This record gives sequence, structure tokens and C-alpha cells, in this order.
Amino acid sequence: MPKPQSPLGAEIYDRELENVFHSWSAQGSLDPLVVTSAEGPYLTDADDNRYIDFSSQLVYTNLGHSHPAIVDAIQRQAAQLCTVAPAHATASRALAAEKILDHLPENLTKVFFTNGGADAVEHSLRLAKLTTGRPKVLAAMRSYHGATQTTLTVSGDNRRWPIDDGRTGVVHFFGPFLHRTVFHAETEEQECARALEHLENVIAIEGPDSFAALIMETVPGTAGIMPPPAGYWAGVREICDRYGILMICDEVMAGFGRTGAWFAIDNYGARPDLVTFAKGVNSGYVPLGGVAMTQEIADTFRDTPYPGGLTYSGHPLATAAAVATITAMEDEDAVGNAARLGTDIIGPALTELREKNPVIGDVRGLGCFWAIEFIDGYGGQKALAAAARAKGLLVFVAGTNRLHIVPPLNIPDDVLREGLSILDAVFSEVTAEQDAAAPVEAVS
Amino acid sequence: MPKPQSPLGAEIYDRELENVFHSWSAQGSLDPLVVTSAEGPYLTDADDNRYIDFSSQLVYTNLGHSHPAIVDAIQRQAAQLCTVAPAHATASRALAAEKILDHLPENLTKVFFTNGGADAVEHSLRLAKLTTGRPKVLAAMRSYHGATQTTLTVSGDNRRWPIDDGRTGVVHFFGPFLHRTVFHAETEEQECARALEHLENVIAIEGPDSFAALIMETVPGTAGIMPPPAGYWAGVREICDRYGILMICDEVMAGFGRTGAWFAIDNYGARPDLVTFAKGVNSGYVPLGGVAMTQEIADTFRDTPYPGGLTYSGHPLATAAAVATITAMEDEDAVGNAARLGTDIIGPALTELREKNPVIGDVRGLGCFWAIEFIDGYGGQKALAAAARAKGLLVFVAGTNRLHIVPPLNIPDDVLREGLSILDAVFSEVTAEQDAAAPVEAVS
Repeated sequence: MPKPQSPLGAEIYDRELENVFHSWSAQGSLDPLVVTSAEGPYLTDADDNRYIDFSSQLVYTNLGHSHPAIVDAIQRQAAQLCTVAPAHATASRALAAEKILDHLPENLTKVFFTNGGADAVEHSLRLAKLTTGRPKVLAAMRSYHGATQTTLTVSGDNRRWPIDDGRTGVVHFFGPFLHRTVFHAETEEQECARALEHLENVIAIEGPDSFAALIMETVPGTAGIMPPPAGYWAGVREICDRYGILMICDEVMAGFGRTGAWFAIDNYGARPDLVTFAKGVNSGYVPLGGVAMTQEIADTFRDTPYPGGLTYSGHPLATAAAVATITAMEDEDAVGNAARLGTDIIGPALTELREKNPVIGDVRGLGCFWAIEFIDGYGGQKALAAAARAKGLLVFVAGTNRLHIVPPLNIPDDVLREGLSILDAVFSEVTAEQDAAAPVEAVS
Repeated sequence: MPKPQSPLGAEIYDRELENVFHSWSAQGSLDPLVVTSAEGPYLTDADDNRYIDFSSQLVYTNLGHSHPAIVDAIQRQAAQLCTVAPAHATASRALAAEKILDHLPENLTKVFFTNGGADAVEHSLRLAKLTTGRPKVLAAMRSYHGATQTTLTVSGDNRRWPIDDGRTGVVHFFGPFLHRTVFHAETEEQECARALEHLENVIAIEGPDSFAALIMETVPGTAGIMPPPAGYWAGVREICDRYGILMICDEVMAGFGRTGAWFAIDNYGARPDLVTFAKGVNSGYVPLGGVAMTQEIADTFRDTPYPGGLTYSGHPLATAAAVATITAMEDEDAVGNAARLGTDIIGPALTELREKNPVIGDVRGLGCFWAIEFIDGYGGQKALAAAARAKGLLVFVAGTNRLHIVPPLNIPDDVLREGLSILDAVFSEVTAEQDAAAPVEAVS
């Protein structure tokens, strides 16, 4: 990414690099895009270049940028009451909790608000451990749950090293993922049955009574957008019930319409005991996360104080943005739209892209939540993303072998089609160049 | 606290209790104040009762409520750009980092933004461990650093049970606190020397090479607002230097003018390697925290990616509020004002209060950061706070034997005096009633 040409843009670029330490990065190789404004599905940089945002930033601007109803709600709340301590009560907090619960399975009755996804996961684990009195947690390989010490240790992602000290009572198991099956399965049904059998084996050997909770992203996101087979979650629910293990669905990325359902678990018809959320709850306009729980879990702390809290729990500005976001999602049927975009436009376009490009090993997803996974040995994903950006399209580079196509749920059809046709052109150009330079051998 | 009389207020009250799980509370005993608006040093409830806010909520609204410059900055930023991913660059983030660094000791050169204080502490510990390659951390008894698993375990506060699993490499030591000396000291000089000697003994026995960092609140806050003796921090710095231990000052509560200095460490003339902040950085109008670090620490991650990040790191709305807050603090000399209020008004008033009320064992503090500590055996703090509230004054109930007097730094002198005179009247009334009902025996 070149440093901006405009003097103001160049100054912002320099001052960002001078003063700001960046997430997940080697600080000597930063080369950020200077963003000055954004509207709907578009981002604008300091040189007035406009980009279609297929990344939804970090998969969170579910209603795009500068949504007028959310901006208006933030401005009005800011004028009236920016903040109150969590011990008090205030309208935006009460309403946000109610609206969130309205769209969750009805066995979930209370919301504890946090600042983001990681602390939502922290508190979901604590609630489960204190409710059950058990010490251990089951968590999936190929998962991401946050970057605090505890949540990174729970994550099934090699970024947890060198953070994990191996002593947190987390037991990792494999979830289903037919494209890279670890169960030698040939069909989704086989993958599902063997993944559940594997989970049972892990629990049996570790000791069923030792587990407070099982935590999984309902549809694993950062690890590769891997929708599980149809029967998987019902099977997990059955196993959890059998052993008294609480089931935590991490919906930080997959929730709030991303998969074309209000929550990803709606696609599978199972009832979690705890649901963590953040990101899409208010399109990320103000930092907010939380955990929804059953009344039984809440009642564990009816007479005994819950040992945890946050200064900004249920922050009025953040919850006002959530109320406006959820209301807009209802009014605009953003969830139905996401389902339609996935089925009618994104899915067919990516399937066609895979057919034309042998470097693509798999495309998969649902709603506005899709992955393009390359064949082993292909290393051109960053070049593809850079070429797309040069043509005005931002895509999400994930892991070492994927691009994620995760546009806002309300992206207009024509803008979505324009972005997909840029992607198609970029694949043709870049893979042709790469073929000419160094042929890739398909090994998977 | 009665449920509001107004129908709208009563509805908010009911819906908050029905849907929201509250921090640090037995959920069956919630009785929140329904807050509808707030301005400067005042909070207004649903029945239009107005309260002088001596709590600054949770000690964070350093510029009071609805400060026009901060509200305006939030509204303008919301209209232009609510959010961008942390990988990009944007003006408010770069400027906020620069303005924060402007007021910190000049050896600190980079800011990593988080959502609040707990994750700031999480990342300060990670930065220290990865920079030094050492596993353990020194932390103070009588401290609070946050409520994630790791930060609660680091905290020297019994709320960490039953969270602490005893296996995190945290070694707790005692800081200086003459009023409840554990060193049998009789003067501040003795307390200081003996606390430093104690720290040296702990380090020697545990092994100097095993410690990545020492973390302390520069002036411990929630645990009792205990300003350390004059030479303590210089002594800690010297010990840390001798053993290659990084010194982390947790300024989440004490920073941004609270003590009458930009950062509490300015009162002691020592240079930390890492400083954590949140709360006052933007008066809590938008959730924001962060950690400032030396160039040496940042350079550890020049070529190697830092293993950590947050979706909302350097959130534009939060950092725009920080720029506006810090600018307003500069323009209005909020820091100088806080120092003056402490020296000229709060300190003398609380000293007089102690002289009149034998149930008060100690008053202490600086700037707008004061504690009233009761003698052992006195249990009337909640009654005092309730009586104050009935007269229109909110004070902060802390621990089991304290009230904290922590008004905004810009509270007008007459409002401050009015609040202090309410406090004086409440003490006379309540302690007289309590004396009549059940005489308190002074045991300390």
C-alpha cells in the first residue's frame, strides 16, 4: 500500500506509524491504508480512492458504514447521556438486552454486557465453571475466541503460542470439516458421525464430570468459515446434556445475521446454554460485546454475587447503537437479505470462480459469510488481495491459504456483483501471471 | 433506592432487572438508580431528582457528564467514520496516541489501544513477558487490575477467589500503607524503607531472574486510595533496574489528572516501562483503554509479530473522544484544578470531617482522589451513602470500610462545597442515630 499522496493523508500515515502499536503485526512492516470516511459498502482513503468493503472490516460492520439510523442514535445518545456506571439502570441498556434476547433461543433470558468478544468469552467460561463447579473446558481445534490470556489459550489456533502456559484446563478436540477431514470421512454424514464419536471419546478419557463447558464458534470464522454438517450441533447438545456440560456457542463473528439467520445456531436448531456476541450487535460502531445465559445460570448468582464486572458493562452509547442496529436489521430484513445474497449471488459466483481457477480448492459458506480456500502449495493470496485493492475491492486475507468474502448484509446487489466481477478479473490476471512465473502444482 | 414513580422510569427499572445481568452483584438484590440524563457534576434520575456525582461513576468521568467538546467530537466522528479495522490508519487514532504520549514520561513512545483497563493490563503483562523472556509477575496485595481471569488473578483483592487457580506465576507482595502498616512502621519514611526491603526479600527468595514485570497501581485506587510515601516509586524503579524487571504502572484509575498530575507517577518522578490506562482517557464516554510502552519494548516486535490484538483496537469513535477530552483538559487546566481542589477544598474539608467524627479512622488522598476510612467495627458506610443519596449526593462505597470522594476534576467550587456540606450533615445525622441505636466501640 503506498503512503498517501495528499499531505494530510501522509501526515496521518506518519503519525499513526510513529505513535500506534498495531495488533498481530511486526511493527517494522506496517503499511496501513489511511481511511478518512466510509459510507454503506464503501471505504474512502486519504487520496479519495473508494473501495468496496468485502471484509466488513474484521467481519463486523454488518450494516455497512455510516448507517444513518445508527449514527443518529449515537448522536442523540451522546447528547443525552454518554455513560453511566454499570450499577445504575438506563433505557438503552435495558432495551438492548431485551432486543438481543428477542432474537436468541427463548431459553436464554439474561444478558451480561462486556466491551467485546474476548471478555464475553472470559465471562461465559467463568459463568459455566461457577454454575457447574467443574474445572475444565472443551474447545475446538481450528477456532478463535479472543486474545486475552485465557481466551487465546482456549482458541485452537497456533497464535496461542507463546501465550498458552498449558495449565488452564482446556482440552482441545476436532470439530467437523470435511474438506480437510481428520476422520477419513467421505461424506458430510460420515464427518458428522465421526466428529461426534471423537468428541465422546475425548470426554470419556478426560472424564465427563470434569467439564464445565464446551465452547465452539457455531460456524468457525477466522479459522476458515466452516459450516458444520446438519446434525452436528444437535449431536453436541445431546452429548452435553448427557454429561451435564454447558454448551457455549461463540457467535461473536457468526451472530447478528452474518449467516443469513439471526444467530448461526438457528441454522441447526439446537439450544445453547450460553451465547457470546460482539461485532455485529451494533455493527462495531461502538465497542460492545456480551454473553446471554439461561435463567438457571443467572440464578446461580441470585444470592451470591457474581465475581466479575466491567467499568463499561452495558455502556449507554454502545447499547444505544445496538438498539438502533437491531431495529434497522428488523426494519430492513437484513437477515433475510443476507440469506438471499448467499444463496442467489455469492454462492453461485464463488462456485463459478472455483470452476475457472484450479488454484481454488474449496469455496464454502452461507449468508454473507464465505471462504475461498486455495490448494496446498499456493501462496498467492496476498497478491490477489493487493490486486483487488488496486481495483477498488477490499477482501479479507485469512490464515495462510484463504480469502474470506464477508460483505455487509445490506450491500446492494449491484455493488456486490461489481465486487465479485472485480474478484473474477483479479483471479484471471494474477493467477495467469503466477502461472507464467512459477507453475503451481495441485497437491490437494 | 425506590423504584421510580414515573411510569417510564418504572418500566426502564423493570426491564433492566428482567434482562440485564449486573457486574459484581447478587442478581436477586439489585435496586438500581434509573439514570435518564447527566450534565457536568450532576446526574438526573427518572423522577427528575438531581444528584451531585462525587463518584465520577466508577471514577472515570474526569470531565463530568455531557462535556460539550467531547459530545461534539463524538457526534462529528460518528457522522464521518464510526469505525475502521485496527490494521488501517485513521486520524483520530494517530492523534489520540500522540496526545496521550505527550503527557506521559518521554521514555514511553508507543501506544497499543484496548477496549478498557483489564485488557490493557493483559497486554502489558504479555509485552513484558515476551520482551524479557521471563515467566513471573510481581503484583501488590491491596490492588485491583481488572476482571478477566488473568487480571483478577493478578489483583491483590479477595474477589479473585474463586477465580484464581493458583498457577499463573503471580507473586504478591505488600506495598506501603502506613495507616494499616504490615511492617510495624511508625513514620512514612520507615514504612517506605521497610516496604522496599520487603519487596527485595520477596524477589530474592523467588529468584530475581524469574520476574518479567512488577505491576502496581501508581496510587492504589479501589483498594483504598493509598498514596505511597515520597521515595517509594524511586526505590521500586531502582530495584527493577537492578534485576532487569520491567516496571508497569497501572494508571487506569489514577491517570489523566485524577491525582492532580497528568499521571500519578508524575508525583513521584520515576519512569515506568509500561503504563496502562483507560477511564479518564476519554472520561469513559466511549469504551477505551491502552498501554503505553518504551521503544525498546515496541522493538521486540519490530520483526516478529506481536501475538495479540483486538477488533476495536484504536476505535475511531473512542479515540476521537480521547482527543477531545485531552484537549479540553489542556484548555481548561483540569489537572491544575484537580490539584487545587484537593489541596484547598477537599483535603481541609475531610480533615475537619474526621476531627468531628470519631468513626472516621483516616482520610487521605490527593487531587480529586480521596478516601474516608472508618475505624474497625464500624459498619455504617452503606447507611451513610444512602442518606447522602437521599439528600442528592452520590458517593462511592468501597470495600467494607470506606467511602471514596472522587468528583470530576472540573467540578465547580460551589458544587463541590455543597456536596461536602451535604456529607457533613449526613455524617452528623447518621452517626448520631447509629450512636443512639448501638454505640460503636473504637478498636483502631
